[in-house]
Amino acid sequence: MKPVRVGICGLGTVGGGTFNVLTRNADEIARRAGRPIVIEQVAHRSLNPECDLTGIKTTTDVFEVARNPDIDVLVELVGGYELARELVLTAIANGKHVVTANKALIAVHGNEIFHAAHEQGVIVAFEGAVAGGVPVVKSLREGLGANRIEWVAGIINGTGNYILTHMRSEGRAFEDVLAEAQALGYAEADPTFDVEGIDAAHKLTILASIAYGVPLQFEKAYTEGISRVTFDDVEQADNLGYTIKHLGISKRTDAGLELRVHPTLIPKERLLANVHGVKNAIAIMGDAVGPTLYYGAGAGAEPTASAVVADLLDVARDIATDHHYRVPYLAFIGIGDDDGSMPILPMEDIVTAYYLRLLAVDRPGVLARVATILAEQGISIEALVQKEATEGELVPIILLTHRTREKNMNEAIRHIESMADIAGPVTRIRVESLDEQE
Amino acid sequence: MKPVRVGICGLGTVGGGTFNVLTRNADEIARRAGRPIVIEQVAHRSLNPECDLTGIKTTTDVFEVARNPDIDVLVELVGGYELARELVLTAIANGKHVVTANKALIAVHGNEIFHAAHEQGVIVAFEGAVAGGVPVVKSLREGLGANRIEWVAGIINGTGNYILTHMRSEGRAFEDVLAEAQALGYAEADPTFDVEGIDAAHKLTILASIAYGVPLQFEKAYTEGISRVTFDDVEQADNLGYTIKHLGISKRTDAGLELRVHPTLIPKERLLANVHGVKNAIAIMGDAVGPTLYYGAGAGAEPTASAVVADLLDVARDIATDHHYRVPYLAFIGIGDDDGSMPILPMEDIVTAYYLRLLAVDRPGVLARVATILAEQGISIEALVQKEATEGELVPIILLTHRTREKNMNEAIRHIESMADIAGPVTRIRVESLDEQE
Repeated sequence: MKPVRVGICGLGTVGGGTFNVLTRNADEIARRAGRPIVIEQVAHRSLNPECDLTGIKTTTDVFEVARNPDIDVLVELVGGYELARELVLTAIANGKHVVTANKALIAVHGNEIFHAAHEQGVIVAFEGAVAGGVPVVKSLREGLGANRIEWVAGIINGTGNYILTHMRSEGRAFEDVLAEAQALGYAEADPTFDVEGIDAAHKLTILASIAYGVPLQFEKAYTEGISRVTFDDVEQADNLGYTIKHLGISKRTDAGLELRVHPTLIPKERLLANVHGVKNAIAIMGDAVGPTLYYGAGAGAEPTASAVVADLLDVARDIATDHHYRVPYLAFIGIGDDDGSMPILPMEDIVTAYYLRLLAVDRPGVLARVATILAEQGISIEALVQKEATEGELVPIILLTHRTREKNMNEAIRHIESMADIAGPVTRIRVESLDEQE
Repeated sequence: MKPVRVGICGLGTVGGGTFNVLTRNADEIARRAGRPIVIEQVAHRSLNPECDLTGIKTTTDVFEVARNPDIDVLVELVGGYELARELVLTAIANGKHVVTANKALIAVHGNEIFHAAHEQGVIVAFEGAVAGGVPVVKSLREGLGANRIEWVAGIINGTGNYILTHMRSEGRAFEDVLAEAQALGYAEADPTFDVEGIDAAHKLTILASIAYGVPLQFEKAYTEGISRVTFDDVEQADNLGYTIKHLGISKRTDAGLELRVHPTLIPKERLLANVHGVKNAIAIMGDAVGPTLYYGAGAGAEPTASAVVADLLDVARDIATDHHYRVPYLAFIGIGDDDGSMPILPMEDIVTAYYLRLLAVDRPGVLARVATILAEQGISIEALVQKEATEGELVPIILLTHRTREKNMNEAIRHIESMADIAGPVTRIRVESLDEQE
């Protein structure tokens, strides 16, 4: 059969990896796809020393690829928002299929892009946008297609997981491990995107859309970073049987969908708690299948290339298929026609359990007052640890609560912080059991 | 679009689950598939009290379904070999697509079935045949399609994993936990299929074919069960930093493919070592993606139904597609034309590390003689533990070796067992590090 002709835009880390995987495994890929997948053109600004471009047509203008009539599929690996958006929309307008690993682009401009692609009858594939090489988009969109998805919870930012892993295993502070991660190239010079949860929220937004069949709504995601997690919290959590992970969590409830990224205590025995270093893992609960989990490298040249090339294989198979028989972009037909029956819940309406750490003056009655404030908000206590204090010192009090509404917890914390015997702000970390019942 | 009309053959555990998932999630499934998937007919021998068959056309003759012109897809859930084979071949001959969860059928008769299906241009899908609801067939066949697969290692029999989990956590003997598993319905009255590794070998055979693009060769798989694993071994392994799991392992080597099921020591920190109870998990190493893992329920009514219905969704999408554009049955085009360049290696040619447990007379020179025998076979020792003995008692010696060829280890064990100072047979359990380098 005729080869599929690919134009790669961007020859950085992922672009270079994609070029090399397509070249190195060309025979194996052709034997899987039933036709060769050939690189017709590469657009790049600077040379990637990892790639041998001998005999490859190159350009410095990505739009030349988007308009090249000899190209069937444009692979967008330039990153960022505006240039990528314009490039992808130009490629679509020229009748080309698109493969991208750009989570920011899909999370923020996906609805517009999928609408344009639908009108043109072309594929836009984005496996590489979530969890790098882990085929979680395909698993959720196709493999679990029989299920009503109940929740998704994932370690979807490798930098954050690297930091939390080393804080825990080596008893170090956040800033210290972050500096090391930057030196090793696992974290950017400006780490905000990773450690404040924005990158994870992009990926979670995409997962939630394909889990529940709702439009992409990145602007409604709640994000909280890990920069305020202390080693003391990590240690206290450990004593209580928990590990702190930076999770993206989306749950279906009767009132709507939860969509939130924040540090989370999870029971140590969960597989997610045992995912270390820069690796990613996503747990997905379906009503028929029960809990499942997908694990692997969430970033890097060849792991992400693995996802990009898998998308190219799908394009190679579906290229001759009538548009209506393809897997819908966001898993369900007619997501644009969503009737709003599953709104994204504001953060104060989510329901979860909590870990609280307070510093109190060691005086009779303080604990009773804290317990009363919680009770007034209908919050019940699951566990309480009060450390012994030396005379006159402040004592830390650690609390685990049962599940309650965030609004009530906000109110309780406001009251506790206003107590004369409580010093400084209350540390609050959400707790998820991730069990089959919840 | 036109509905896809399904005939379900067999209304036992998985058949009943499939019926119920298709019925309960019909709207969500139709919104994913772009068309309704309707149950046109059910063939069953006895009533399943879990299923409400009101308004459903039923029969007691499965072949009636295979010949029913109103049916597009036959779902084979009768189990076993001969009846299932005849039923599936009849359905194919009548131009029907087939979905099955029958691993024994695919592992043993798959080559014949896929050949017939290819001639007729119909789909035969079998996600449910490996690891129940875990979409590992799709992940390996499509999601990792860019990769040269290096190895696959999985906990693919829930019964065996249940037994090993409880032996370890409760310090109990194999027979004791097996009896409990039988009482709970996790193990059959005749547990041979599960605990001797035959069921796992069926699944491993399927995984290896789609990983490497070789024909199904169940008859060449090596199987060793867990019935000889003692709590003492479990405890010794734990002390050395390992957990014993019953794994199906297939590796690509320069000489050929390894295909083996046996108890295996793996490092405690691996995710596979933390998969407990009846759950399944498969680790897959690709040259581009690195290590990945897929986890979930490996059996049960609705988990397996989740896989069966996912296959039906694929059929619903591909039904109008030209046969040549579909994902090949065993992941690669032209597996029948295999040139034999990747033979399945006989067990004596595999290479792995070993755990050995011997009982020795407590006398000077015994250890030196054992070490000499190993050295003569080119086997080097990684760790050695000799327990203290009370006067005159036999002492256990625990050895971990570096990687060596099984043939050499057989020879060494033969020599060790012939020593006058060694009592009884040597216990040998293979050790796999499952790291990224190996």
